[in-house]
Amino acid sequence: MQKFSFDLLHQHKKSRTGILYTRHGQIRTPAFMPVGTRGTVKAMLPESVDSTGADIILGNTYHLMLQPGAERIANLGGLHKFMNWPKPILTDSGGFQVMSLSKLRKISEEGVTFSSHIDGSKHLLSPERSTEIQYQLGSTITMAFDECTSYPATFEQAKSSMELTSRWGTRSRKAFINREGYGQFGIIQGSIYPELRALSATNLLELDFEGYAIGGLAVGEGQKLMFETLDYAPALLPINKPRYLMGVGKPADIIGAVTRGVDMFDCVIPTRSGRNGQAFTKYGTVNIRNSQFKDDAEPLEYDCPCAACKNYSKAYLHHLVKVGEILGSILMTWHNLTYYQELMARIRNYIEDGKDLDFLY
Amino acid sequence: MQKFSFDLLHQHKKSRTGILYTRHGQIRTPAFMPVGTRGTVKAMLPESVDSTGADIILGNTYHLMLQPGAERIANLGGLHKFMNWPKPILTDSGGFQVMSLSKLRKISEEGVTFSSHIDGSKHLLSPERSTEIQYQLGSTITMAFDECTSYPATFEQAKSSMELTSRWGTRSRKAFINREGYGQFGIIQGSIYPELRALSATNLLELDFEGYAIGGLAVGEGQKLMFETLDYAPALLPINKPRYLMGVGKPADIIGAVTRGVDMFDCVIPTRSGRNGQAFTKYGTVNIRNSQFKDDAEPLEYDCPCAACKNYSKAYLHHLVKVGEILGSILMTWHNLTYYQELMARIRNYIEDGKDLDFLY
Repeated sequence: MQKFSFDLLHQHKKSRTGILYTRHGQIRTPAFMPVGTRGTVKAMLPESVDSTGADIILGNTYHLMLQPGAERIANLGGLHKFMNWPKPILTDSGGFQVMSLSKLRKISEEGVTFSSHIDGSKHLLSPERSTEIQYQLGSTITMAFDECTSYPATFEQAKSSMELTSRWGTRSRKAFINREGYGQFGIIQGSIYPELRALSATNLLELDFEGYAIGGLAVGEGQKLMFETLDYAPALLPINKPRYLMGVGKPADIIGAVTRGVDMFDCVIPTRSGRNGQAFTKYGTVNIRNSQFKDDAEPLEYDCPCAACKNYSKAYLHHLVKVGEILGSILMTWHNLTYYQELMARIRNYIEDGKDLDFLY
Repeated sequence: MQKFSFDLLHQHKKSRTGILYTRHGQIRTPAFMPVGTRGTVKAMLPESVDSTGADIILGNTYHLMLQPGAERIANLGGLHKFMNWPKPILTDSGGFQVMSLSKLRKISEEGVTFSSHIDGSKHLLSPERSTEIQYQLGSTITMAFDECTSYPATFEQAKSSMELTSRWGTRSRKAFINREGYGQFGIIQGSIYPELRALSATNLLELDFEGYAIGGLAVGEGQKLMFETLDYAPALLPINKPRYLMGVGKPADIIGAVTRGVDMFDCVIPTRSGRNGQAFTKYGTVNIRNSQFKDDAEPLEYDCPCAACKNYSKAYLHHLVKVGEILGSILMTWHNLTYYQELMARIRNYIEDGKDLDFLY
């Protein structure tokens, strides 16, 4: 049985490449995780996600506990089997979604009680319950239950929130049932305050998680403040464990974060943008709805291996997206996820070659 | 270069199997054509449509002339290339859609002037223009431009409409530019009046089309009257040419029509039903939204080779359709199109074995 472990392969300045070994396969880092919120990466078959080069996807505790329910998925054999994705899955703990999506939420030391955004039913998410749900889902990587500190936050607010996250981290770690090849990541908070980030890291490092996430970024602070935080935060974390920046981001955000020592990312941008008709290309973003493409016989990118670029013109994609055909969402998503995985591969190659990530995306 | 020709292989009572040879490949009959109205079979990649066993799909003159435009598709290399479907395509002439979808339409001897249902722009469809558009699309099988007689129609109304269709058939045939491996089908009308159907057939047979469609059925007359018409109408057509029943239908309609001598079918039912959560199975139709499936670990059908049945439980399909995920539309459509192609294969096997189509679907 494969142990959960992380091998650091190459370092160039602060950038790193590595391999994260898990029960469900290897993850090449820096890694981008497509988001599969409700048990599906939107508009994609899992084999299509696989074909883009993704080693791992992300699922959401909050959404899946409400629909179809974690016990149900457990009874059906777990999330991997349910959605036919045998490779690694990381699950959000629900800490972020419960704050951004649910109604009538109430935070206490115990956890968060909230009303479902779907049917108003009452639920509790706590470190113990979130960890249990992720166990029921069979998540390869379980995230600790945290309070995502909103931005802006005063020092006092950020301190109090970070301390709650630390206490919840201790309880999450205690609730985690370790199985060979599975792991749990802690989440450091502290907003934009270096001393709070350091305290948060100190608290969580004691718990010896298998990896660490930097939470509370990409929540409205902007790229400049995010990068300023990333200038010091990754160094607070163990060198021999994966570092995950949650909810990031655009290609330039990812490149900037890798340059500062981050290993893992997730974001809805490639999938959501694709469904909205926006394509990422090496020459910048393209709004395929633009009428300039209606007679364009060229593919989005000649050297892209995705299904959209191999077989279809921009004129066809323009037509599909304009009339609202599902195939438009499928092909645009496929392209964007391929673009992101190609970006990560290029980043890994640059680091292995000892080159700065000085290319523009 | 392959000639457009039809080989009758087996006959059992009035049922027939055959192969229609075309420029773009062979079509095994009886054949079901998935509908690809706007240059895509909804929710399906063309390679997925191919994997269901479909030999031919249908496209729509009316929709494609409005969006993205026939000249545009011609300039982009034709419909096959545009939508990445190298196998045969049959295109509706637009006669039916212009009556059911467009606004402010005016019928004259010349043709039909109408306002687009999309942007209100004025257009003309005539036998010459419809035939030209289908040439621009590169349709493997071009349909003659007809007036689809609505139901109910008095004898006089049906006679007048049928005669117009005959005159338009003559003009459509004259406008057809024959290319090796391509063909054109005439459409007989006459509503539920045997003498009018006979007259229509006599008129159109003189034009020596490569195949014939029976139009004006499945327009509200019900299965009983449709079958009564099919009890005599196919025999009015040449035995050595394919017979196409337009817009049909449910499995029982198809079986009943094959039993009466029909070779080709098209219908939106499998695709539309799939997107709405209805699955066809050997044990009847299944509404996957029904809560009885929320914990059902079984596939829709164990012996179905489709992607949905090979890899997913009914519980997962229930979840996807219930929350409105695109993958639900993809998998349900895939299953239904596979079901239809498996039905056609079973029908062909029964005929080849000299067996009545006495199975229930």
